[in-house]
Amino acid sequence: MAKLLRVNMTDHTVREDEFPKEWERFGGRGLSAKILRREVPGNCDPMGEFNKLILAPGVLTGTAAPTSGRTSVGGKSPLTNGIKEANAGGQFGQKLRRLGYRAVIVEGRTKDRGTYVLTITSKGPELIRADELRLMRTYACAEQLGKNADKRAAFLMVGPAGELGYGNASVAITDLDNRYPTRHAARGGLGAVMGTKGLKAVIIDDHGTIALKAEENDDYRKKISDFVTTWRGKKNAYAKGTAIVVDMASEWGNLPTRNRRSGSFEGHSKINADAIFATFETRGGGMHNCLAGCIVQCSNTIYNEKKEYVTSALEFETLALLGANCGVDDLDAIAEFDRLCDELGMDTIETGAAIAVAMDGGVLPFGDVAGMRNLFAEMEKGTPLGRIIGSGAAVTGRAFNVERIPVVKGQAVPAWEPRTLRATGITYCTSPMGADHTAGLVFGGTKSWEGLAVKSRESQIYNAVVDSSGFCQFQEPPMEAIAGFYSACLGETISKDDLRNMGWEILQDEWAFNRDAGYTRAADHLPEFMKVEPIPTNKMVFDVPNSELDKVYDLNAK
Amino acid sequence: MAKLLRVNMTDHTVREDEFPKEWERFGGRGLSAKILRREVPGNCDPMGEFNKLILAPGVLTGTAAPTSGRTSVGGKSPLTNGIKEANAGGQFGQKLRRLGYRAVIVEGRTKDRGTYVLTITSKGPELIRADELRLMRTYACAEQLGKNADKRAAFLMVGPAGELGYGNASVAITDLDNRYPTRHAARGGLGAVMGTKGLKAVIIDDHGTIALKAEENDDYRKKISDFVTTWRGKKNAYAKGTAIVVDMASEWGNLPTRNRRSGSFEGHSKINADAIFATFETRGGGMHNCLAGCIVQCSNTIYNEKKEYVTSALEFETLALLGANCGVDDLDAIAEFDRLCDELGMDTIETGAAIAVAMDGGVLPFGDVAGMRNLFAEMEKGTPLGRIIGSGAAVTGRAFNVERIPVVKGQAVPAWEPRTLRATGITYCTSPMGADHTAGLVFGGTKSWEGLAVKSRESQIYNAVVDSSGFCQFQEPPMEAIAGFYSACLGETISKDDLRNMGWEILQDEWAFNRDAGYTRAADHLPEFMKVEPIPTNKMVFDVPNSELDKVYDLNAK
Repeated sequence: MAKLLRVNMTDHTVREDEFPKEWERFGGRGLSAKILRREVPGNCDPMGEFNKLILAPGVLTGTAAPTSGRTSVGGKSPLTNGIKEANAGGQFGQKLRRLGYRAVIVEGRTKDRGTYVLTITSKGPELIRADELRLMRTYACAEQLGKNADKRAAFLMVGPAGELGYGNASVAITDLDNRYPTRHAARGGLGAVMGTKGLKAVIIDDHGTIALKAEENDDYRKKISDFVTTWRGKKNAYAKGTAIVVDMASEWGNLPTRNRRSGSFEGHSKINADAIFATFETRGGGMHNCLAGCIVQCSNTIYNEKKEYVTSALEFETLALLGANCGVDDLDAIAEFDRLCDELGMDTIETGAAIAVAMDGGVLPFGDVAGMRNLFAEMEKGTPLGRIIGSGAAVTGRAFNVERIPVVKGQAVPAWEPRTLRATGITYCTSPMGADHTAGLVFGGTKSWEGLAVKSRESQIYNAVVDSSGFCQFQEPPMEAIAGFYSACLGETISKDDLRNMGWEILQDEWAFNRDAGYTRAADHLPEFMKVEPIPTNKMVFDVPNSELDKVYDLNAK
Repeated sequence: MAKLLRVNMTDHTVREDEFPKEWERFGGRGLSAKILRREVPGNCDPMGEFNKLILAPGVLTGTAAPTSGRTSVGGKSPLTNGIKEANAGGQFGQKLRRLGYRAVIVEGRTKDRGTYVLTITSKGPELIRADELRLMRTYACAEQLGKNADKRAAFLMVGPAGELGYGNASVAITDLDNRYPTRHAARGGLGAVMGTKGLKAVIIDDHGTIALKAEENDDYRKKISDFVTTWRGKKNAYAKGTAIVVDMASEWGNLPTRNRRSGSFEGHSKINADAIFATFETRGGGMHNCLAGCIVQCSNTIYNEKKEYVTSALEFETLALLGANCGVDDLDAIAEFDRLCDELGMDTIETGAAIAVAMDGGVLPFGDVAGMRNLFAEMEKGTPLGRIIGSGAAVTGRAFNVERIPVVKGQAVPAWEPRTLRATGITYCTSPMGADHTAGLVFGGTKSWEGLAVKSRESQIYNAVVDSSGFCQFQEPPMEAIAGFYSACLGETISKDDLRNMGWEILQDEWAFNRDAGYTRAADHLPEFMKVEPIPTNKMVFDVPNSELDKVYDLNAK
């Protein structure tokens, strides 16, 4: 019998509930939305005792379905004040499922200002006070937790940013080796929800458990081998990681540069995939997978000139936001900042966007690597300046009275430029997640905006399904294939259409939460400067009318 | 023919428009709402070029109606992101009306980052660049402006807080003598709207104009003398100023103390009206009126031990928020902070609330006068810490991860405690102005919450009328009397019921603006701590159900 694990941080108790049968088909993002809709008042204080933090692996997570091990982190976002789901790789979700849990629900808020660690093993869950971990960096925390844990134990944790309540705070999950906290459920400031509740880390040790039932199913195993065969026959777009798109993005006017004053960066070739691959040859590092069973292997490991490990993975979004957008073309500096974001437990997108806004406001010059290094130190120390930057791009922009504040619903716009990619801009405007490319990244839209809302809507539905399954978006699993896995795993026939309906239901749940939170269509817009200030190279502004945005909310609109 | 003066800060032009006939009955707050509804998109960026700042005297302002000279400042608030009106005394409004203007509409946003002064005389309006005034304190600015202006010229201006874009920034108007910038349209951060547009000050010189037509009307003159006779026959509740309520507030659990951990302050007798009156005897100062024709004379003038002028007026809200709420019982220190708020152009409520939140978050101890002095210096310098505090209580609370953040719709709760005065709490929840006692302060509500919504609604309607008339709320003019003045002044019969309908229409305009801004009923609530943390002395929490709040929006509900 599947279980829900409830952790109450107010009275420091843990409890196991039966997993509701009616949610069987929902995992990850979809399950998180179901729980939040039922249990959390939409207009509660995201940092208060009525918000909850949900840790939910996908429907297929824990099985051998390829690259299906992602864990969703959900809650009401301190950045958007709406519902939020962010997911990450690593081994956490697979182990949680093998221990029989469909989700962990962290409730309440500690009154004693203590720091706690939740341990989940086959012997059951336990909440332990661990004040010695307070404000510890994530790498050191993982090392510390590892001292008393089985080698197979994975960790999920917040860094100092989460404990300080920063809007840019992520939730970190350890890598394939269970020791490097490099996978981040990064967006929406959910790390601040976890940190404020007083939960520093979760240790998960599935030692002594057996594989999930689905594994023993011949049909399921066949579906896996067919899927892998098809995948191997295609070109892997992510063989060089997400950095592969840096050049193309710059050429298209899609690479945010100097707080989005431009969409093209003259230093793009210093921070692209070729530059990263050059380090593999001379220093070490290379491509790898972030979780067991991954066939995409998009993740890179970056070494410095001394041939020492620096960070993993250096993604396109990080190269764009902490690089081009801050006017920085120094790959080693960006790798260092990526590591610092991992160490402090921070979203590289929100952090890079906030720093660029501060640069635009004259706090430090664009391209000032030493100044950026100092900002990370200020964030770690919790100085007033550090707290402003850590609060994200919206607060930073307001604090320094900056005109150009690239946020939607309080959350920083990801690299993919909505003035150029207008369908993605429609996603940023309408997604229950705020400006989030993983909610519905759609290429195209440079010629006409007509028909783009439908593309955004369908992409949003698809991504809601993928983010509920446990699959990685980079694997781009066709709906047909996901339906096959679901059918075999759940023991009932689930069609492509069923999945599409489920995706739509998830979006409806999320939009309903946001309505309860106080959101209306009035917030469905990009920042004003994107409507009047064109990208210099392609002269584009975001000019999609509201009548087109409406079509996202209407399943019948063409 | 009445005029509207339009000032475009983008291209630095001024223009006179005919005042729309259909708005004849609306002035001040009501007129500001009409203009904003027609001309400003509800969901625009309050700091952007599409927001407008409205300066609107009341319907009766400029006539000899007693205490009718108030000026409303309106716009979309950077604090609440909704519509905002704040009004102040001083001579500005009377002079603006005598020059034939019903309102000044400041549009656009300067692109050259220049500092501008608008001069309005009988020769017409003129916008002049005056970079030498940038970030100048208000007293020095008034002195500077006075050097080249007629003695009868009044000034309206922002201090450094407005120019730095702070959420606590007020709009200052000079006093009866036209030189001390002590009257503040304080709430909602409207000074930041003015400052960001690039407008530092408005000089108004009505030299050469004649009294308004209403003055020559025998009926009007009789209404005035009758009203004054009635007033003189009553006890003036404000004869000792608003400080008179300090003791009562403390006794009732209504005096916010140490970031509202308590509602009673052990040091209340050191900061009450008697303490203020004692300074009159030994140092000088006393009671006076803030504008010509005032019969209330609630304003005090405070001198220091050296018998030097410090500030005017030291109000109850200031004594509460910068005093008790910060744990300060030092009257001289509070007077000094009041002067600093005037000098920097800041709302004493928002500033005091933000400092108390910072104290609660451990930034400085409660009662730390030297630390508070330093915070004012930080705000003036625009340091990161100063910018956090200047951004108001909501940002301060989030930046320092404080649990107890007393704001509604982003704006600090005034002194009057909504847990004790639950009808006033209903006003804070439902008013289009956010937490604002001048929108509908209702005493009582300590026994049962039933029937309180109707009291709040009727008070909100009444205050919308008063704040549109130009009358001071402290004069408490009966609707009957206001109707008489309107009828005589406008030359058409206006009944008490007409006025009530106008008040309701103003609220409807404002709520409609807020709906366009994205507000729903989901934001109609007090901060969570006020629902669960009782006032220690009277054990009260805010427990009014939504079904009761609904009645504010329904004119027929009982």
